[in-house]
Amino acid sequence: MTQIFDDPADFADEALDGFTAANRRYVSRVDGGVVRATASPQGQVAVVVGGGSGHYPAFAGLVGAGLAAGSACGNMFASPAAGQVYRVAQAAHNGGGVLLSYGNYAGDVLHFGQAQVRLNAEGIETRTVLVTDDIASAPADQLDKRRGIAGDLTVFKVAGAAAEEGLDLDEVERLAVLANARTRSLGVAFDGCTLPGSPAPLFHVPAGRMALGLGIHGEPGISEHPLPTASELAQLLVSRLLDDRPEHPGTRVVPIVNGLGTVKYEELFLLFGKVEKLLTAAGLTVVEPECGELVTSLDMSGLSLTLLWLDDELERLWAAPADTPAFRKGAVARRARRDVSADAAAPATDSERPTPAAAALGRHALSAIAAVRDVVVEHEQELGRLDAIAGDGDHGIGMRRGVEAAVAAAQSAATSDGGASVRRILAAAGEAWSEKAGGTSGALWGTAVIAAGAALGNRDRYTGRDAAAAVEAFASAITTLGQAGPGDKTMVDALLPFRDAFLTEISGGAPVGRALAAAAAAARGAADLTAGLRPLKGRARPLAERSLGHPDPGAVSFALIAERLGRHLEAEPMEQGAKA
Amino acid sequence: MTQIFDDPADFADEALDGFTAANRRYVSRVDGGVVRATASPQGQVAVVVGGGSGHYPAFAGLVGAGLAAGSACGNMFASPAAGQVYRVAQAAHNGGGVLLSYGNYAGDVLHFGQAQVRLNAEGIETRTVLVTDDIASAPADQLDKRRGIAGDLTVFKVAGAAAEEGLDLDEVERLAVLANARTRSLGVAFDGCTLPGSPAPLFHVPAGRMALGLGIHGEPGISEHPLPTASELAQLLVSRLLDDRPEHPGTRVVPIVNGLGTVKYEELFLLFGKVEKLLTAAGLTVVEPECGELVTSLDMSGLSLTLLWLDDELERLWAAPADTPAFRKGAVARRARRDVSADAAAPATDSERPTPAAAALGRHALSAIAAVRDVVVEHEQELGRLDAIAGDGDHGIGMRRGVEAAVAAAQSAATSDGGASVRRILAAAGEAWSEKAGGTSGALWGTAVIAAGAALGNRDRYTGRDAAAAVEAFASAITTLGQAGPGDKTMVDALLPFRDAFLTEISGGAPVGRALAAAAAAARGAADLTAGLRPLKGRARPLAERSLGHPDPGAVSFALIAERLGRHLEAEPMEQGAKA
Repeated sequence: MTQIFDDPADFADEALDGFTAANRRYVSRVDGGVVRATASPQGQVAVVVGGGSGHYPAFAGLVGAGLAAGSACGNMFASPAAGQVYRVAQAAHNGGGVLLSYGNYAGDVLHFGQAQVRLNAEGIETRTVLVTDDIASAPADQLDKRRGIAGDLTVFKVAGAAAEEGLDLDEVERLAVLANARTRSLGVAFDGCTLPGSPAPLFHVPAGRMALGLGIHGEPGISEHPLPTASELAQLLVSRLLDDRPEHPGTRVVPIVNGLGTVKYEELFLLFGKVEKLLTAAGLTVVEPECGELVTSLDMSGLSLTLLWLDDELERLWAAPADTPAFRKGAVARRARRDVSADAAAPATDSERPTPAAAALGRHALSAIAAVRDVVVEHEQELGRLDAIAGDGDHGIGMRRGVEAAVAAAQSAATSDGGASVRRILAAAGEAWSEKAGGTSGALWGTAVIAAGAALGNRDRYTGRDAAAAVEAFASAITTLGQAGPGDKTMVDALLPFRDAFLTEISGGAPVGRALAAAAAAARGAADLTAGLRPLKGRARPLAERSLGHPDPGAVSFALIAERLGRHLEAEPMEQGAKA
Repeated sequence: MTQIFDDPADFADEALDGFTAANRRYVSRVDGGVVRATASPQGQVAVVVGGGSGHYPAFAGLVGAGLAAGSACGNMFASPAAGQVYRVAQAAHNGGGVLLSYGNYAGDVLHFGQAQVRLNAEGIETRTVLVTDDIASAPADQLDKRRGIAGDLTVFKVAGAAAEEGLDLDEVERLAVLANARTRSLGVAFDGCTLPGSPAPLFHVPAGRMALGLGIHGEPGISEHPLPTASELAQLLVSRLLDDRPEHPGTRVVPIVNGLGTVKYEELFLLFGKVEKLLTAAGLTVVEPECGELVTSLDMSGLSLTLLWLDDELERLWAAPADTPAFRKGAVARRARRDVSADAAAPATDSERPTPAAAALGRHALSAIAAVRDVVVEHEQELGRLDAIAGDGDHGIGMRRGVEAAVAAAQSAATSDGGASVRRILAAAGEAWSEKAGGTSGALWGTAVIAAGAALGNRDRYTGRDAAAAVEAFASAITTLGQAGPGDKTMVDALLPFRDAFLTEISGGAPVGRALAAAAAAARGAADLTAGLRPLKGRARPLAERSLGHPDPGAVSFALIAERLGRHLEAEPMEQGAKA
């Protein structure tokens, strides 16, 4: 039961503030997370980790010399927004580029991916290594579908040590990929955790039972078993992990017994003793093990076993010194403090000087976003009901929060001194959208709007070809970041027919408004057809069955927005330049 | 719920084995606990800590450079036996003497006290500093009655740092006393913990309520309150601690927010943030704080706030580097390993060469112990029933376990090559008694038997005066270690009349057997009179009321043993020398 708070809504923020206060010698608070409080050598690769809050020591507790340079910290079990990741990475950057590393979860992939696009666009070379250690989450032939659990630690540690050695971004990335490829974990749960302010745990495991294959966000597991003895549990975890060895495993392993929250130290040690004996009996050499609470899930009752299969490089990097709030190894010389507030770039001020015509087009874009806002607000309840059939029912409110924030941000940009171009209007709108909407659709919409704006640029007039480029950029952002394809029952099912129809109309010479209206009709038809699909992403199977016969809410909201935008641009064509 | 084990009876031992396996670079396992795996400078004071298991990182997790030299680890929430403390201290000793430091609990005081007596007797100079930080457990004018909770950490750390600086035993003791005098804690509980194998927690706090003044052994607290907000809780803890400042407090404090087990890191950090603000607002400077799980109580839901009020010496020692499995600070250079198995003294082989007459007296003592065993076994059930009225009902079984182990150990000594003197017979018996009986009465009986043996020594014959000295040594060991006085409803109520009657008889010229019989009658009468007393030690108040009208089981068992011994020695007088 999580119960120490004033207002549950402030829990993650206040906890991070308190964490920073308790660890001032290690970390400084920046907007969106924390970065090292100590200076790192100029040119050192910045390993930026992160994810939802509620997993301490992951992720903020791993920031310090020899490990992470910064951590983006989302709300409880929720990915940080792209803007948070972006700002943390910017503050952590030392001139050597950024390696983003985090567990493979859809929300994190979206938001970190969006931040990566933006960092690269601004000249901060950024790479990503996903952690995919959980053998319960996908079969061995689909390693990249696996999610990340306690293996976060081995990947972050290896990457951080490589950066500390002064290796360049290519090498740090290569070694992090290697560490991930040689890390395997499996967990079990005995009971669920309770989010702050929630009256009940996220799930229950019946007394005397155990769920195998836990996740770290309150996912209960993939199968249920009778509660084993410690020896049986050690046998189960070790044998499954040995059955899932990486290629060329070698004989030297780092075992990590990790507690999720309420399986306590004595129990973890007891289990570790048995795990070590089994590994030794299997002919393996145990090297610098860890046993404790390393990647937790609030007060969840569960534990996991991780094996990092060493080679010479990984052994050197695993054994290297590190000095962070929650993970310390060897001796690290005390470092000079760094004045983060002075150091960290202030929010990037956009130095564009739009012409009056470009600024007029910017205002035109603002009015288009306002039209989108209107249609979302009108349909908020309907979208919520549709989403509640097989989801958590927040699609309506999420879209509304996002688009309202987008309008406000666009308005502020449009009314700034000299006004703003379409590019800047859409960048402001997209960023606000993904920060305030939260969740997957918020990140997708935000990124796609920014991408469309980047395609349109800062210009005095636009052609149909420019509009086509914007639509292509929009669609590409969604499919790249969302990793959904046709038939997965997502907004992509409406988006791709829309894009194709639009490109066809434009190449046939239609004005943008009419092309948009035609494409919107295609989107509407395709959205309706999603009623016949079973969702393949992001839904549990029983919910997938329930959704059959109902269209996908994301496809529906996309079609609604496309229709309204079509009407809006037919009434006020963009190609003509705007009335000043 | 503690549920990772094979057999609950082996939980503490297997957990300690696993802990050692996971931390081989820090600790080595010795009989009774762990010591540093690394070499310490010759002459360095060995700070030996300990207590029951179930409090990790306390106590084994605090062994390492700059902190403890060893930890004696008892069963779950139960003091280590004196022999365990003795052996750990002996293995940890570096030639600079030993400082024993532990929380102020009756069982620990007994067993560590007994070990201290033995260490000093064997030439290892040993001192004790009790931790008494819990302001809820006694008023400010009775500091020495307070129990130790998370303040263990500050006292151990200061003592360990002082030893690391090379200070001598006087100085290390002085600084540990100073740290304890300037450390204050207060805790709260939200729910109880579950011992391994137990179906239910030790206590429950009703939902929406909080118990103030928790202990770390499942003691629920001294008063109950509605569940506060985090801000209210911070205010409560800080204001109570500020009201209980030590003399000359100064303005620099180390706050320690400690989680008991299932109040998780994010909650602790959130609270810490508020505590720090309140301390700062009170004009105090926060120095090198700690926030995490430092002294736990299995899966207990609770937390405590500790303040260490610094002066210049304490600030230097608190800030000094330390490198242990669970507490690391600053940079400690890697140290050479130490071969503990070769280093640690084997169980002291007793080099006495008893004469045939002395060995015959030793066999005489063995037969007396066997007679004591018989009377305990005959009355085991009765003693258990008596204890169950207001206690846990284990007095019968505990006495039986103790005395049976005593007979076995005495037998083994008596049949060793050349036999054994009375001194060695009683030393072996007493040591086995206190190890196997467990609990308070086991420790008292064991120590008292050893003390009686030491008074009798290795001789060829004994006089009545020798017997009187033995009885005085026995009684003095019980009153010193047990810290109970007449009227507290303990065995002391039977023991003191027994001693007085015995001394009177002996000085009147009575033979030992008759003096013993007369003294036993006095003990029996006094034991019966304890039925009219309310227990003042070691019992909760409702249980105290229930015990009224029933004699104290410890007083009764003492009287039974005295009677049987009297009969035995009347039949086979000791003064005559023994038949060979």
